[in-house]
This record gives sequence, structure tokens and C-alpha cells, in this order.
Amino acid sequence: MNTFTISALDTLVNEKVKAQIKETIDQKTKPLGSLGQLEALAFQLACVQYAQTGQLKIQADKAQMLIFAGDHGIAQHGISIAPSEVTSQMVLNFINGGAAINCFCRVNNIDLKVIDAGIKLPVTADHANFIVKRIAAGTNDITQRAAMTIEQAERAIQYGAEIVQQQITNGADLMAFGEMGIGNTSSAAALLSTLTGEAAELCVGKGTGINNEQYKLKLTLIKQAIERCNRTQTQAQSQSQYQTKKTPIETLAQVGGFEIAQMVGGMLATAQAKKCILVDGFISSIAALTAVSLYPASRDYMVFCHKSEEFGHQLIINKLNAKPLLDLSLRLGEGTGAALAVPLIRSAAEFYNNMASFSQANVTPV
Amino acid sequence: MNTFTISALDTLVNEKVKAQIKETIDQKTKPLGSLGQLEALAFQLACVQYAQTGQLKIQADKAQMLIFAGDHGIAQHGISIAPSEVTSQMVLNFINGGAAINCFCRVNNIDLKVIDAGIKLPVTADHANFIVKRIAAGTNDITQRAAMTIEQAERAIQYGAEIVQQQITNGADLMAFGEMGIGNTSSAAALLSTLTGEAAELCVGKGTGINNEQYKLKLTLIKQAIERCNRTQTQAQSQSQYQTKKTPIETLAQVGGFEIAQMVGGMLATAQAKKCILVDGFISSIAALTAVSLYPASRDYMVFCHKSEEFGHQLIINKLNAKPLLDLSLRLGEGTGAALAVPLIRSAAEFYNNMASFSQANVTPV
Repeated sequence: MNTFTISALDTLVNEKVKAQIKETIDQKTKPLGSLGQLEALAFQLACVQYAQTGQLKIQADKAQMLIFAGDHGIAQHGISIAPSEVTSQMVLNFINGGAAINCFCRVNNIDLKVIDAGIKLPVTADHANFIVKRIAAGTNDITQRAAMTIEQAERAIQYGAEIVQQQITNGADLMAFGEMGIGNTSSAAALLSTLTGEAAELCVGKGTGINNEQYKLKLTLIKQAIERCNRTQTQAQSQSQYQTKKTPIETLAQVGGFEIAQMVGGMLATAQAKKCILVDGFISSIAALTAVSLYPASRDYMVFCHKSEEFGHQLIINKLNAKPLLDLSLRLGEGTGAALAVPLIRSAAEFYNNMASFSQANVTPV
Repeated sequence: MNTFTISALDTLVNEKVKAQIKETIDQKTKPLGSLGQLEALAFQLACVQYAQTGQLKIQADKAQMLIFAGDHGIAQHGISIAPSEVTSQMVLNFINGGAAINCFCRVNNIDLKVIDAGIKLPVTADHANFIVKRIAAGTNDITQRAAMTIEQAERAIQYGAEIVQQQITNGADLMAFGEMGIGNTSSAAALLSTLTGEAAELCVGKGTGINNEQYKLKLTLIKQAIERCNRTQTQAQSQSQYQTKKTPIETLAQVGGFEIAQMVGGMLATAQAKKCILVDGFISSIAALTAVSLYPASRDYMVFCHKSEEFGHQLIINKLNAKPLLDLSLRLGEGTGAALAVPLIRSAAEFYNNMASFSQANVTPV
């Protein structure tokens, strides 16, 4: 059983410090509130920084992108635009620097690492940016059986946490979570429905671009997975004989994915280290929702980087009371939305740290 | 009379080249269209690049921010949150690196220059980032008389063009237009109403944060300026004796500002040089609308960087059929929204230039 120690920011940053942070923002040479969402972001970053170091100078230089890759048994039904082999091909593309996320990380000075969390066809690559933490060669088909065992889910969480802890030891300030896995919008939609109780129709979308016929099949299969999951005895039930709601770990084991479980662990370890979690699109956000289901305080450390085109993403955003920074109609994953938001985060940090106050600049306060 | 030679992209980029650009984007290792708005942006950047150099590799490294500062006679009525003196104070703040735009330019590797286009109180500063191109010590009060003469408007356009031409000679790839000027949302609202014929109520907003009483006064004064402007004889009328619609230059002289007129010239010179114009918020967008009114083809070179909180901005965006990249509830000006969008533009360029195609990366096409 994984355990994390995660404190809410409210318990770590007292009202006096919060008022000081707000005053710092308000005394900058600009009309009150005129930097809009960047002011709320700077406030959050400053609170996280204070919780972490007791300092108020925000550190946001070293951003680390982690791309967790895993395959999904449900993909065998042909409900994605590509077969599972593409997961491995794209992992090699990430390693070789050719994918969209590589471009965005290069431009925005973000270090990138790729994790094989359990892809179907392992790749052979000896590269410093590649980490192998395989749970198995893809999950089971969730329409038929649990995606993984509880032990595998817990091990995946542990692996994700260890990877993050290593990056933090290496000096990362911001931890961004991306993913790759053919079929993973199906797993994410099933998780969203089972974690929240929302109807499958509100959770299932067209992924990276399936047609209407594939969508119908995808919806049917995901409903099947959700129903199977709901019928399955919980651990608590097997011990108590009473109907008990599944724990998030049980749900994750039933309908999740290895890359999603590792992201959950990585996010929790980031919150435990009191660093910022940069959440990408639909899959990354379902990992965030799972993490918050396990440890509600982890929400305080999350920055939602973009609104995905994937249908169910808005639902997660609403559940987590988030306002993503970007809305560019992306539906790619890989961490692309998070990478694109990093300059906004650094810009918020820079204005908080280094913009002149009215008194410093001899500007009449407005 | 200023003249520019500005060609529409359609006349410079033929269908075959456009198809080649689209194919390049579609063959990248990602699902079709999955990079959303960044794909449309990359397409535009590639077309502009081809028009400029006949090459398809987009150059977006060297971004130049130009902040045009000017004062406005209408500010004497107290319809801004600050007096005109703050324009000069902020110009010094820009020169000294203390403002929000300085922070965002530093983080995003953008060169910044400040132009005194006609502020009320000149500042003394000997700094390589400061350019003095004063037309006068602020415009006239537009509720009472024309903001400036036609000759001043044309000279301001000429100055703006010369400044941009110098930056292009120095190697700038992208030209971003920011501004500072207490009272300039009033001038911009009057321009918007007179250029488009839309009611003042749809054009006037609360600027950087005036109260309801100030807003009422602002609206009354702007209506007064618009009515005065509409009553004024046009040059064409004085020659022809017939009722003729004002030219954009006449409108600019009647209710514009020195910084706005210089931005118009700068934008036209950028389009003439076939480089990208990065448009910021409300004031920068009214300069863009004026530029497009003069030379419709200049629209093709414009990238709308953010949606401002200022009320009338959405109207300009609609008129110019634009979809801004960012929507962060900013209402500061200075070019801040444009500076924040530069990494998105560079990211679009980088994926277009260097992302692997399916065949290059041995990924099964999807």
C-alpha cells in the first residue's frame, strides 16, 4: 500500500503570508488585477514555493517533462485511429527527438524523459532520456477483466513516485506529466465514469479522431467495462460482506492503465515534495483526478495547462474546479499542452519575482 | 501622403505551394489536425515566410517588441485610473526594465524598444532601447477638436514605418506592437466607432479599471468626440461639395493618438516587408483595424495574440475575423499579450520546421 504525506497549502501558508503575497502582486507597476489569470497563477506558485522552502522567490526555471507510455488491451477492438504498435513507434520517436512534444520542449527549454510504463512491444534504446519501468506488456482488455492487479497498480504508483523523486533530486522545479498509449482515452473515460458516477456518454469522446461508427463501438465497450467494474467485488466487500464503494486504487486496477497509474504516483510524489504539478490534457487530467481522489490536498499543487478538445476533459476540469491556461483545440496528448504553458508559468514567476513596485519605479500608484 | 506596397498572401503563395505546406503539416507524426490552432498558425507563418523569402523554413527566432507611448488630451477629464504623468513614469519604467512587459520579454527572449511617439512630459534617458520620435506633447482633447492634423497623422505613420524598417534591417523576424498612453482606450474606442459605424456603447469599456461613474463620463465624452468627428468636413468634401465618408487617415487625425498612428505605420511597414505582425490587445488591435482599413492585404500578416478583457476588443476581433491565441483576462496593454504568445509562435514554427514525418520516424501513418 502506497502512502504519501501531502499537506494542503492552507495548513502550510498562513493568512499573513498569503496577504503578503497578494500585496506584492498588487504593488507591482500595473493596474490592480490587470494581469488576469497570471496573477492567480503567480499567487499559487508563490504559495507552493513558500510551502516548499519558506522563501517567496518563485523558482520555475527547471521544468521536467515526463512522458509515461503504456498500452491497453481494449485497443484490440480497433477503437483508436492506430494499432498498439504505434505506441512503441512513438516512444522511439520521443527518444529520437522527432515528436511534437520534443519540438515544444526544445523551444521552451524543458528537459524531457520518456518512461516505458508497460508498452506492448518493448523498444531497445540506450538513451539518457529513456526510463524503463514496465509493469507488463500492456493492460488486460478491460471489457473482459481487470486492467491489472491491485499489486500492479500499487507498483505502478510506486514507480511513478520514484521517477519523480529522482528528477527532484536532479533539481527540477516544475514537473509536467504527459503520456502516450493507443487506447488510453478509453481507459481514461472508464475511470472518469467510475470515479465520478457520471454517465459514460458524458465521459467518452473521439480521442485523436475516430469516426462515428468507431465511436459507437468505443462507447459500447466502455459501458461494458464500467458495468463489469461495478459488478466486481471490492476488497472491502470480500472482507466485510457489505456493499462498499470502490477505492480509487481498485478503480484504477479495474479500468486504468500503467501509464495513468504511474502518473498518479508521480503527481502524488510531486505534491509531497511541494512542487508544482503541470497537468496536460484528458489523460493527464484523469491521473490528476485519481490523485485528488486519493489525496485531496494534492489539488493545491496542480496547474491545469490547457483545455483539450477531447469531450470528457471539460467534465474533469469542472470536477477539479480548474481554469486551464490555454485553449488551442489540441487533442494530441504527449504533454504538448503542458509544454506550451511553461513559458506562461515562468512569465508569472518572473513578474512576481522581478517586476518593479510603484515605489521602486517612482510610478504614481493606481 | 504615405504609400505602402502590400500584397495579399494569395497573390504571392500559389495553390501548389499552399498544398505543399498543408501536406507537410499533415505528414507530421501526429493525428490529423490534433495540434488545433497551432496548425493554422504554422500554415500562416509558412505562407508569410514563403512570400518573404521563397523558402519554407519558418524563421521566428528574433522577435522585436516595440512599445509606442503617447499621451491624450482627453485624459484631462479624469476618465482613466491615472493622470497623464503616469505615461512618462511608465516609459522610464520600460527603459529601466521594471514593467510587466520587460519581465515577459526577458523570459521569452524578445528584444524590447520603447518609442516616445508624443508623451506629455518628455523623459531624459540615454539608452539603446529608447527611441524618440515625438509628434507633439500629447494629442488635443478630441471632445473639442481634432487630435492632430492630417500632416501629423501622416508623419506619425512615416515614423512608425521607419522604426520598423530599422528593426527589420537589424534582423527581426517577428514584429510585436505594444503601447502605453493614459487615455488611449478612449481614443481607440472613438476610432472603433467611427471606423466601423458601431454604436459607442459597443466600443467603450472600463480601460484598466475605472468605476461606473467614470465610465459614464467616458462614454459621454467619447460620444461627443464621435459626433464632432462626424460633423467635421472631410478633405474630399471640401473639394467635391458632396458628402463623402472619411478616409481612415482623416479618422485617425480626428480621434486617434500618436502612438496608435505610429503603430499603424509600423504594421504596414511590417506587412510590406512580408513579416509577421504580432497584435496585442485593444489599442494594438485598433491600430491593426486602421491598417487593414487602409491596406486590406495587411490582414494576412497579422497574428492576433490574445483576447483582452477590454469590452470593445471582441468587436475588433470579429471585424477582423481573428481568433486570438491566448485568453488570460489581461487588460494591461504594453504588448504583454503579444510577448506571452511568442513562445506559441516559435513552437508552431519548430514543429513545422523540425518535427519528424511518418516516413522519417517509421511511424504507421494515422
